[in-house]
Amino acid sequence: VNARIDLNADCGEGYGRWSLGDDAALIPQVSSANLACGVHAGDPDILLASVRLCAAHGVAVGAQPSLPDRQGFGRRDMQLSPAEAYALVVYQIGAVLGCCRAVGVELRHVKPHGALYTMAARDPGLALAIAEAVRDVDATLILYGLAGSELTRAGAGAGLAVAHEAFVDRRYEADGALRPRRLAGALIDDVEVAIAQALAIVERGQVTTGDGATVAVRADTLCLHGDQPGAAAFALRLRAALADRGITVAAPVAAALR
Amino acid sequence: VNARIDLNADCGEGYGRWSLGDDAALIPQVSSANLACGVHAGDPDILLASVRLCAAHGVAVGAQPSLPDRQGFGRRDMQLSPAEAYALVVYQIGAVLGCCRAVGVELRHVKPHGALYTMAARDPGLALAIAEAVRDVDATLILYGLAGSELTRAGAGAGLAVAHEAFVDRRYEADGALRPRRLAGALIDDVEVAIAQALAIVERGQVTTGDGATVAVRADTLCLHGDQPGAAAFALRLRAALADRGITVAAPVAAALR
Amino acid sequence: VNARIDLNADCGEGYGRWSLGDDAALIPQVSSANLACGVHAGDPDILLASVRLCAAHGVAVGAQPSLPDRQGFGRRDMQLSPAEAYALVVYQIGAVLGCCRAVGVELRHVKPHGALYTMAARDPGLALAIAEAVRDVDATLILYGLAGSELTRAGAGAGLAVAHEAFVDRRYEADGALRPRRLAGALIDDVEVAIAQALAIVERGQVTTGDGATVAVRADTLCLHGDQPGAAAFALRLRAALADRGITVAAPVAAALR
Amino acid sequence: VNARIDLNADCGEGYGRWSLGDDAALIPQVSSANLACGVHAGDPDILLASVRLCAAHGVAVGAQPSLPDRQGFGRRDMQLSPAEAYALVVYQIGAVLGCCRAVGVELRHVKPHGALYTMAARDPGLALAIAEAVRDVDATLILYGLAGSELTRAGAGAGLAVAHEAFVDRRYEADGALRPRRLAGALIDDVEVAIAQALAIVERGQVTTGDGATVAVRADTLCLHGDQPGAAAFALRLRAALADRGITVAAPVAAALR
Repeated sequence: VNARIDLNADCGEGYGRWSLGDDAALIPQVSSANLACGVHAGDPDILLASVRLCAAHGVAVGAQPSLPDRQGFGRRDMQLSPAEAYALVVYQIGAVLGCCRAVGVELRHVKPHGALYTMAARDPGLALAIAEAVRDVDATLILYGLAGSELTRAGAGAGLAVAHEAFVDRRYEADGALRPRRLAGALIDDVEVAIAQALAIVERGQVTTGDGATVAVRADTLCLHGDQPGAAAFALRLRAALADRGITVAAPVAAALR
Repeated sequence: VNARIDLNADCGEGYGRWSLGDDAALIPQVSSANLACGVHAGDPDILLASVRLCAAHGVAVGAQPSLPDRQGFGRRDMQLSPAEAYALVVYQIGAVLGCCRAVGVELRHVKPHGALYTMAARDPGLALAIAEAVRDVDATLILYGLAGSELTRAGAGAGLAVAHEAFVDRRYEADGALRPRRLAGALIDDVEVAIAQALAIVERGQVTTGDGATVAVRADTLCLHGDQPGAAAFALRLRAALADRGITVAAPVAAALR
Repeated sequence: VNARIDLNADCGEGYGRWSLGDDAALIPQVSSANLACGVHAGDPDILLASVRLCAAHGVAVGAQPSLPDRQGFGRRDMQLSPAEAYALVVYQIGAVLGCCRAVGVELRHVKPHGALYTMAARDPGLALAIAEAVRDVDATLILYGLAGSELTRAGAGAGLAVAHEAFVDRRYEADGALRPRRLAGALIDDVEVAIAQALAIVERGQVTTGDGATVAVRADTLCLHGDQPGAAAFALRLRAALADRGITVAAPVAAALR
Repeated sequence: VNARIDLNADCGEGYGRWSLGDDAALIPQVSSANLACGVHAGDPDILLASVRLCAAHGVAVGAQPSLPDRQGFGRRDMQLSPAEAYALVVYQIGAVLGCCRAVGVELRHVKPHGALYTMAARDPGLALAIAEAVRDVDATLILYGLAGSELTRAGAGAGLAVAHEAFVDRRYEADGALRPRRLAGALIDDVEVAIAQALAIVERGQVTTGDGATVAVRADTLCLHGDQPGAAAFALRLRAALADRGITVAAPVAAALR
């Protein structure tokens, strides 16, 4: 049972003329923002503006490194050597770090994006490369990854504080894995069901599968999808439900995660 | 009269499958390397490898931020607001900073590339945006710019240590400006003439124009063009000539530049 | 006085995950669609889908070549040699042509986008390069350009059919030029005023400036801005107003433009 | 036994400031050039110049469509739906077609590049998407693919003329597959051995494996790797050897391939 939980969302995912999601509404509702690093999305202007928005609202700034596939929004699997992944992550964390220093806020965490996140969840070599990249840039950064995955394992092994992540709007399978998006029932569209799942994760460390079974899920942070319509409204609802139960929403503290 | 001078060169300017210049031969000969930041040239793999090469040879690492025009190698003028330039420079310095931290070396300087360099030399608003970007990321960074230009002026105004740059293989005009590349005689092809110009700049703070006039040129650093054939061989010759005169080649120290 | 007029709009200007405007609503209302060629906006998937949408609605397909500046949406001036502009336009027309052939429709026109359009309106060398690129790919293509500009002049000189373009939601100056966007009153926000301007252009070949003066404006085609909210609704209103006056909306025919 | 054979090479694979291979020396030696389409390599200037070079030497122009991964030179596997592959290939063929029309030469063939080539050789769905893209742009184009692969099968099924390709500088396995590059002995470095393999393929339709076994290999075209040092010199040697045997080097004719 947690008395506190982190709410994180991907932000800064526009590009030039194009916007995505409503960061101005969403950022005030979350405790951690994972900012696009200018590779799958974002650009220097958007990244800097996003850091400033986080600073204005006291939201923890994180980097969201991704595969070099802007057209595919970093969601298409791509063959990458560990050395390429290492350099890619170092570069992108650095870019966000530069913006944080210009604004005068701390960079707090790193959460890989899209296909890099899911590939690293199952590939130990890729996970290790990412964990080492994070550690080598700044060993005090917190690595966010899928709860119980190769990525969180590699992060802990590299000596990083690791935040296990769970999802409030995705169905889990009996083995604790996320139901793949391509299957029916992968997404939880009903707001009440999503909020119930969030509370079950935070309060009891468990979720109910589509078949009614109960599965243990550890969560230090919950992922909110910022590019859905109504994302900010949902976040408000969720915060109210958490507040009702006396649960504090706050970015994780590294010492508590080790 | 200087007892010491910095030699700088643009490095890390390959991209993926493509290479440019012979960094492995050139980097050991210079005291400062300006690394492409992955925008006009370079990519995370090349940037990281370049930082490692600099670290191995004790060469000062700098960032070489540029316009977002990879096809044009950052050499085509482009309309850019000061706010866009600020973000662009912050982002690129950050990316190099990330690689420096991963390798465990310090980032020492920033030298804008190509059209950004020449535009900033004459445009005070752009120069100010760049100077503030450098200062806001790290006020101890040294800004390299064309000697006596708007960029070095803005850098000093922003409280940065500034390295005035002169060129050994470019002709100067009577007013101290570089002879534009499009005009005949802009480039000095003769190695002996280039070395003589280097010595005149370092020892006497002056150059001889094409018409035989003498013009004062201040230089804290000399630019070597790494993408020319024979760049490393030329650097060796120049170092020998400087050593003969008892002139030390070394990266500038911020305190001495203020 | 025209008994018919073309309505054109920029379409296919999303990119990967990002969308812009509502092409599905707008395309059925126009007679010519200028499709982003995958350079300032668009990608192969979006371009192909846009050609199919045009085919489904019988809308004339055009290419909208632009500067290689995706982050700046092709709106930032950029230094470009005529040879570079020629190749850039040939390439982009070709990409749209490939999609047209795959779908089985004709490519009908070319309208440069953004800064390429405005630069070509005033620069005869650039205008000539663009006109020759269009002609060399297909001499039956119609070149759309700012009415009375260097671009339409160059197009006619190159033997192309040329469609002079006027704007319904931009103020004109006393000399017939568009009031620059950075000045107050450049845009016409009032729908009724915009529709009145459209009718004045089509029926009388003239517009009223902000000062109440009357200026002659030739128009073979009117530009609708598809990325404005309400673009499709405005197009419907405009079509109704044109229909009331007995004016047919239809893509231009090359023979009538020479 | 062939009395004629096509020699093809990848050309136009520089990018902006970067060059690769020596097209000016290589193009006169081959009968077919596969031009980079501006996606994995190439840009409008280079593509247009390459088409002109082919035109000057009477070399058949082909498009070399590839994955959207410029940093990885199109060599990294990437998850792609058939619909994405279809659009990607249509777009790239179109871009080359535009350049061909501007220069006044015919586009003759299409050969997928890098990972798109190898993925399509084994994936029937991807192969079909590519074959349909080629056919839909121009059903008279010849599709080049790995001899006996899914790609050539899909091409024939789609009604295209198909050129089976064999390699002179790669070892074959006993099952007729290419020995993977990551294994020792994958490449044939010895010029004499490579020329012997070329003659064996052309004259007897067979190659000798590393173990001395004989395997049948059909070839309508032989691939020369243009980015190797000495590529043009090797091509000259090979042409001399073919001439000695009375074998003509010429681009394939569609009618003969069906």
